[in-house]
Amino acid sequence: MRIYDIINKKRYARELSREEIFFAINGFVSGEVADYQMSALAMAICINSMTEREVLDLTDAMLRSGDTINLSRFGHLSVDKHSTGGVGDKTTLIVAPIVASLGAKVAKMSGRGLGHTGGTVDKLEAFCDFKTSLSSEDFLKQVEKIGICVIGQSANLVPADKKLYALRDVSATVESIPLIASSIMSKKLASGSKNIVLDIKVGSGAFMKTESEARALAHAMIKIGKGFGRNVRAIITNMDTPLGKAVGNSLEVWEAIELLKGNITSELYEVCIALSSNMISCAFEIDIEEAKKLCINAVSNGSALKKMKEWIGYQGGDVSLICESERLLQASCKKDFKSQKCGYVSRIDAEKVGIAAMMLGAGRMKKDDIIDTHAGILLNLSIGDRVFEGDTLATLFSSSYDKFSPCEELLLQAFELSDEKPQKQNVIIDTI
Amino acid sequence: MRIYDIINKKRYARELSREEIFFAINGFVSGEVADYQMSALAMAICINSMTEREVLDLTDAMLRSGDTINLSRFGHLSVDKHSTGGVGDKTTLIVAPIVASLGAKVAKMSGRGLGHTGGTVDKLEAFCDFKTSLSSEDFLKQVEKIGICVIGQSANLVPADKKLYALRDVSATVESIPLIASSIMSKKLASGSKNIVLDIKVGSGAFMKTESEARALAHAMIKIGKGFGRNVRAIITNMDTPLGKAVGNSLEVWEAIELLKGNITSELYEVCIALSSNMISCAFEIDIEEAKKLCINAVSNGSALKKMKEWIGYQGGDVSLICESERLLQASCKKDFKSQKCGYVSRIDAEKVGIAAMMLGAGRMKKDDIIDTHAGILLNLSIGDRVFEGDTLATLFSSSYDKFSPCEELLLQAFELSDEKPQKQNVIIDTI
Repeated sequence: MRIYDIINKKRYARELSREEIFFAINGFVSGEVADYQMSALAMAICINSMTEREVLDLTDAMLRSGDTINLSRFGHLSVDKHSTGGVGDKTTLIVAPIVASLGAKVAKMSGRGLGHTGGTVDKLEAFCDFKTSLSSEDFLKQVEKIGICVIGQSANLVPADKKLYALRDVSATVESIPLIASSIMSKKLASGSKNIVLDIKVGSGAFMKTESEARALAHAMIKIGKGFGRNVRAIITNMDTPLGKAVGNSLEVWEAIELLKGNITSELYEVCIALSSNMISCAFEIDIEEAKKLCINAVSNGSALKKMKEWIGYQGGDVSLICESERLLQASCKKDFKSQKCGYVSRIDAEKVGIAAMMLGAGRMKKDDIIDTHAGILLNLSIGDRVFEGDTLATLFSSSYDKFSPCEELLLQAFELSDEKPQKQNVIIDTI
Repeated sequence: MRIYDIINKKRYARELSREEIFFAINGFVSGEVADYQMSALAMAICINSMTEREVLDLTDAMLRSGDTINLSRFGHLSVDKHSTGGVGDKTTLIVAPIVASLGAKVAKMSGRGLGHTGGTVDKLEAFCDFKTSLSSEDFLKQVEKIGICVIGQSANLVPADKKLYALRDVSATVESIPLIASSIMSKKLASGSKNIVLDIKVGSGAFMKTESEARALAHAMIKIGKGFGRNVRAIITNMDTPLGKAVGNSLEVWEAIELLKGNITSELYEVCIALSSNMISCAFEIDIEEAKKLCINAVSNGSALKKMKEWIGYQGGDVSLICESERLLQASCKKDFKSQKCGYVSRIDAEKVGIAAMMLGAGRMKKDDIIDTHAGILLNLSIGDRVFEGDTLATLFSSSYDKFSPCEELLLQAFELSDEKPQKQNVIIDTI
């Protein structure tokens, strides 16, 4: 078998065999297949796509490249969620304690943020001394004991995906449903949960720019899950606008706490209830409406908040921040960003807000950049709100006043006002 | 400008600007564009192709990456030829002295062989001590004095193509008309001749497997030539069967000498007359039929053979081999390959014969392999010839008897016999 022939086959849009896919992936991980060969193959896949069978084999080849976690001791109770990445998405911080408080088992590995999208692990570090790295023994022990543990991805979780993703990221081969679906699902499968709920974002702030792409990705991932004996559900949500009001690590933790305290009933709440009720419906094999009632109760009766405290405390984080959550809003420099016009808020561009927050220090441009936990943006208004000249559109948080001016220029483009009140868009587009 | 965006643009089959093409090629030569980025771009070009304008700019970017030779002192008399590579193709050894004997100026840089196809420079080295490397001053002086000089490609002739070709060769991105056309034409343009005649091979032994591909390549190269103010003509010739009877370096030189002595009137002769008459017709701006008469005369009256002697002697080669050409058939081991059946020769697979000759030592599997000048295959029959059991189909030449057996196995597959006499195929398919 020669990698040349495999690349050439996909170049002419022919189906690769299981053996050929394993040869390519294993060779790439071992270094026998060169980067320039893998990037050519990735490009051929981007343009000529893959069959469902090929995608299953690709996922399997990646999955088998590293360690996998065995959650079989939790039976059908183990649940995981994955979001395809958005701006202001702090749903893990909220849905994990909701479903754990109801008895589901959340054994979750999360990523760090890159570019204009955030990562759960970065957010959790806003709780000083929160441990994001645990031995697999301690990880499982914690899930057994309190039903929830969230850590960073271990170095040997799907190494093929790590290497391939880094290559795709510099060779313009990111946007491909077979490659995205196998990348995400190989990690979810390696993480071991029986039930997986996906939040696929669509819009300006997301990888998937159109609804039909998002739907295609959802179907591809559900098929992979089925192929590996997992229950997978997907919700498609709007990411034209940031999710919630806070963008930036400690600000988002604050918002998550406020939600669990019952103080937020916006679209963020809607998405969190949709995610957690699908997770509960899978884990306990119950009707979605029944699951939804349970989740709403878990927030309103405080049991989810209690579970969050238990969780954060168990992983060494500063639990007092949950009671005194206003301490999460204490950047050394703050500035109100005010409107120069009047009208109705018709658009808050998620990608631009994400980049503006990154410029304030909330995100990484490059992998090794250090994040400023307290930096970010707190939006003051939602789509459809009436605005007058001089009204505060958002508050900016940073460690340096110098960072405000370039950020404000970008925010000026992010906010659009209209003369007429715009129609409300549904945040949840579909459940699949 | 970012290479990522350029790759992404071609991935979605959009047209690249001149600036983007130069950015990619210059970056690749300087090392700022990585191999894995260039191979992804090459794959996108293979699949999504390029417009004529893009191909012109790509050729120009490659051309400008290194030295160019100025042949303006020869006015419209400078002529070059190029063959897309075949098995048994010794036409340069024949047409160069024909056209030089008629007053055209042949200042030619030739390649070495790789895989199952041979290279003119390797063949010329069959004349012991023939110099294949000259300073550009000596190169031009020789052309001025005797009208002909053939050397190996200088290190800095289109370095972008050298680097890109090496990458395409290992990333399954060879077969692409825009990439092949710009690769060949950038070298031809850099070599400086005003008139260029192309021999595009089609068939089992050639890069182009179908006539329509060959035609498309011809049109692409003619358009490039026009774009740079050169006269380009192309003939499309059959390469299902080796060209002539000899495959292997000294054997091919022997056949070329025999042809110039007037002893061969087969298809090889036909192709050589077609090529040289197109070259003469361009150089002297005369009618093709008139040019053809001149070329036929140059062979029959011995002036082309005389020019060959002058040329080989001038470049330090052993001229006595031309008079005593049978010395070119002296490998230490020879063996007749005999027919096990009877019938009519219906097929002699060019690629298989080429690989069989390579296995005897006539070619390189890898770039650094050393060639055995005397090794090769002399075919004893042509398509349509009657064969009886035990007749000699070919004679094998090598330095070791061990090499015959695997070679014979392959030759067994190369020869096909039929019960009925097959129809004669034209070697020259078209002139464009």
